[in-house]
Amino acid sequence: MQFTAEQIAALLQGEVVGDPKAAVRNFAKIEEGEPGCLSFLANMKYAHYLYETASSIVLVNRDFVPEKPVSATLIKVDNAYESVARLLTIYQQTVEKRRGIHPTAVVAPTAEVGEDCYVGPHAYIGENVKVGSGCQIYANVVVEERCELGDDCLLYPGVSIYHDCKLGHRVTIHSGAVIGADGFGFAPAGDHYEKIPQIGIVTIEDDVEIGANTCVDRSTMGSTYVRRGVKLDNMVQVAHNCEVGAHTVMSAQVGLAGSTKIGQWCMCGGQAGFAGHIKIGDRCGIGAQAGVIGNLKDGTQVIGSPAMDPKTFFRSMAVMKRLPEMMRDVNELKNARQQD
Amino acid sequence: MQFTAEQIAALLQGEVVGDPKAAVRNFAKIEEGEPGCLSFLANMKYAHYLYETASSIVLVNRDFVPEKPVSATLIKVDNAYESVARLLTIYQQTVEKRRGIHPTAVVAPTAEVGEDCYVGPHAYIGENVKVGSGCQIYANVVVEERCELGDDCLLYPGVSIYHDCKLGHRVTIHSGAVIGADGFGFAPAGDHYEKIPQIGIVTIEDDVEIGANTCVDRSTMGSTYVRRGVKLDNMVQVAHNCEVGAHTVMSAQVGLAGSTKIGQWCMCGGQAGFAGHIKIGDRCGIGAQAGVIGNLKDGTQVIGSPAMDPKTFFRSMAVMKRLPEMMRDVNELKNARQQD
Amino acid sequence: MQFTAEQIAALLQGEVVGDPKAAVRNFAKIEEGEPGCLSFLANMKYAHYLYETASSIVLVNRDFVPEKPVSATLIKVDNAYESVARLLTIYQQTVEKRRGIHPTAVVAPTAEVGEDCYVGPHAYIGENVKVGSGCQIYANVVVEERCELGDDCLLYPGVSIYHDCKLGHRVTIHSGAVIGADGFGFAPAGDHYEKIPQIGIVTIEDDVEIGANTCVDRSTMGSTYVRRGVKLDNMVQVAHNCEVGAHTVMSAQVGLAGSTKIGQWCMCGGQAGFAGHIKIGDRCGIGAQAGVIGNLKDGTQVIGSPAMDPKTFFRSMAVMKRLPEMMRDVNELKNARQQD
Repeated sequence: MQFTAEQIAALLQGEVVGDPKAAVRNFAKIEEGEPGCLSFLANMKYAHYLYETASSIVLVNRDFVPEKPVSATLIKVDNAYESVARLLTIYQQTVEKRRGIHPTAVVAPTAEVGEDCYVGPHAYIGENVKVGSGCQIYANVVVEERCELGDDCLLYPGVSIYHDCKLGHRVTIHSGAVIGADGFGFAPAGDHYEKIPQIGIVTIEDDVEIGANTCVDRSTMGSTYVRRGVKLDNMVQVAHNCEVGAHTVMSAQVGLAGSTKIGQWCMCGGQAGFAGHIKIGDRCGIGAQAGVIGNLKDGTQVIGSPAMDPKTFFRSMAVMKRLPEMMRDVNELKNARQQD
Repeated sequence: MQFTAEQIAALLQGEVVGDPKAAVRNFAKIEEGEPGCLSFLANMKYAHYLYETASSIVLVNRDFVPEKPVSATLIKVDNAYESVARLLTIYQQTVEKRRGIHPTAVVAPTAEVGEDCYVGPHAYIGENVKVGSGCQIYANVVVEERCELGDDCLLYPGVSIYHDCKLGHRVTIHSGAVIGADGFGFAPAGDHYEKIPQIGIVTIEDDVEIGANTCVDRSTMGSTYVRRGVKLDNMVQVAHNCEVGAHTVMSAQVGLAGSTKIGQWCMCGGQAGFAGHIKIGDRCGIGAQAGVIGNLKDGTQVIGSPAMDPKTFFRSMAVMKRLPEMMRDVNELKNARQQD
Repeated sequence: MQFTAEQIAALLQGEVVGDPKAAVRNFAKIEEGEPGCLSFLANMKYAHYLYETASSIVLVNRDFVPEKPVSATLIKVDNAYESVARLLTIYQQTVEKRRGIHPTAVVAPTAEVGEDCYVGPHAYIGENVKVGSGCQIYANVVVEERCELGDDCLLYPGVSIYHDCKLGHRVTIHSGAVIGADGFGFAPAGDHYEKIPQIGIVTIEDDVEIGANTCVDRSTMGSTYVRRGVKLDNMVQVAHNCEVGAHTVMSAQVGLAGSTKIGQWCMCGGQAGFAGHIKIGDRCGIGAQAGVIGNLKDGTQVIGSPAMDPKTFFRSMAVMKRLPEMMRDVNELKNARQQD
């Protein structure tokens, strides 16, 4: 299927600069562009590729002004990144959803699987599980007893969900993620540790996406919560009794210690870590590799380990590199003083 | 089943403050308490919830004195956290263990599986594996050839154990953990790296618990050791030839480089990292995100990257934030001196 | 099978010091040596074990001169580590490769599996997948539709490969690794995030080894690349649109944010992190736990977070610990100055 620049511009309420009949069949990164492909330019770091790209059409932001002639046809839109997302979504909706229960899948007799679901090879749906309609449960997924899944969930190969956990609607979980493993609770007991049984659950609300090999541990009692719209990247650790507030986004390898509560609409850079039993407000920004050891108020930005405000951090870091010479200066001043 | 405050107090050798006939059927976090639930208060950060909780009974430490009236019945015990652990353990022991080999499980003809074991759907037990009695091997677990498991091990869905590894008794391994993958050994060989075959094994001793998606690599030769009573949280990396000493506890995302030996009864905070070929003494405390690059003597506490003693670290960090003004001061002093 | 020191020395072009008839059947770490075992000494940290080892033969570097009498027979070689690697490789080549498709494996009717392959229990090979000859696909591996694997690939239990990804020849992937999960792309859209479909793929070239539970995400469009000869340790995160250059080596828990390009022959220490959209030159050395936030030229060495050159880092760190006294000095100088 092929689309012209003017068709795409109409769809995106964009403005064509160039040949309105330029046509595309596929997508390509701007630096790997080919004739017949559509690319986009959102991050100005890549602007220099625009002048060389072989792509037929490039989406750009409305305020973008080329510095040199461009051979591709441009479509100017309010937000090039969002617009390409819309096109990709339309493209992907043409992929047909899988249906049916594979003969090698094991669905316990007491489990209920809704309409239009797919259950892949060697998947296992345990006793008294309830799966909503339109769910896609890929090969080798395990959903243990009494779990509840809403509609249109998508579990990629090898996801494991322990017993009694609850997923909302449209929850996507990538391969190898583990939902509901025991929280890490051990009490010292003389010559050994005694395990604290973890009898709580995990609750994942609507429209959450969870990355590959990410772990969300079950609560000691009650529930660990991942609120609606949350997006967790790969290998994120959410410990027992935590709550991740609605629409919060965490990059790969972030770690939350137990009982910590993260507000709504926060953004956490990769490999950031949070101490246990702390409370992070809404709309906080936590830099990559930050180590957050105390509560943060709404809207706080931090970076560094231990975490501090970014201005202080970057200023201090700039001085850091000159510490040896500063120490020499101080010693010289001291010596001079002593000789006075 | 329902228990009264006086029954529970008798069990825990505690003292009832309030209604000895108050009865509970379930557990709840103190901040989510409901009538008929038992909660506990161990971390004083949560003390303010005590005065509002709807739980019928709350376990508190014996020395705790409420500052305001409490509607719940209190049971005072020597250690509230340990006591709730005991109750949870009793509660969980009422869950029946699974038994039997699922018809879709593949157990190699030369494998020996002990009495009262469970082998779940699509699990695979390889040739010449020996599994002790009372083991629970959940769905999609793979135990490769010649592994040996003691009694009462518990392998959650999707655990993979490579060939020839040895597990003691009562070893619990959570989903997605990988035991015995090749250690990361490559020798530079001109225009490429040559793989160093890893012909050793992993030995996991009695009463170890290993978190979800944690990796313990096999040794180049000999064995990687996880000694008895060790508790590893999720996504911990134990490289080849390492040894984790008895009863050591590691939080999520800790990483050990190759051939490092950790002593007994150590505690490692989340995301801490250890260089290779170092030796950490017994009862060391390693802070979250620490980077340990040298040996540590018994009982050492460290934090920071590179790791240093906590007092130095926190003092230096306090000055860190004031570095820019300090640099300004030094420059002013220098200028003043030059003008003298 | 048993080999004498003179046979081994002939194979390795080494020189026997001691009994040329000393014979070995197995390998052992030098500190765990037993009669009949061969050990090696490459890291001088372990030299003291040489004088106590019970191993019959020890490989040492040609320039090594013992300080005390050694009871083991030594074989002096150009590179002890490389030589033991060669012996281990010969040893391991005697292990027979598995063959045949297990009756519980599911191979889609449109998939093509080459000669001499092994497909283990409960593995799943999707529609239109092409698998080269001599591949070993272990239990519970999932290879989704239209993937292409070259010859002699080795996928350990529980590997998941999403649709359309391409693997070269001799690619080894350890358990739990996830290839081709969706890149982490979401565009803010008012009261929620809109997912950016990830329609690209992952390309893994020849002779790559990927560690357990490592994740390589698929590209938004085009491909994420892991170039030939790359070695990734466990739990490494390679985000969408990244490229890891040929023969680059990354230790465990390293994380790359999206669209970052790493050059050839780089070495990254464990837990290092890379910001997105940056470009790292060839033969760079990145220290453990480093945080790399900008481009690096060929041959650059960095450490620290944010990353800086190692000399500056270690010098500054040395001063770091003395910051409190330095601050006191500065304050005294200021006070003295004011009193002048």
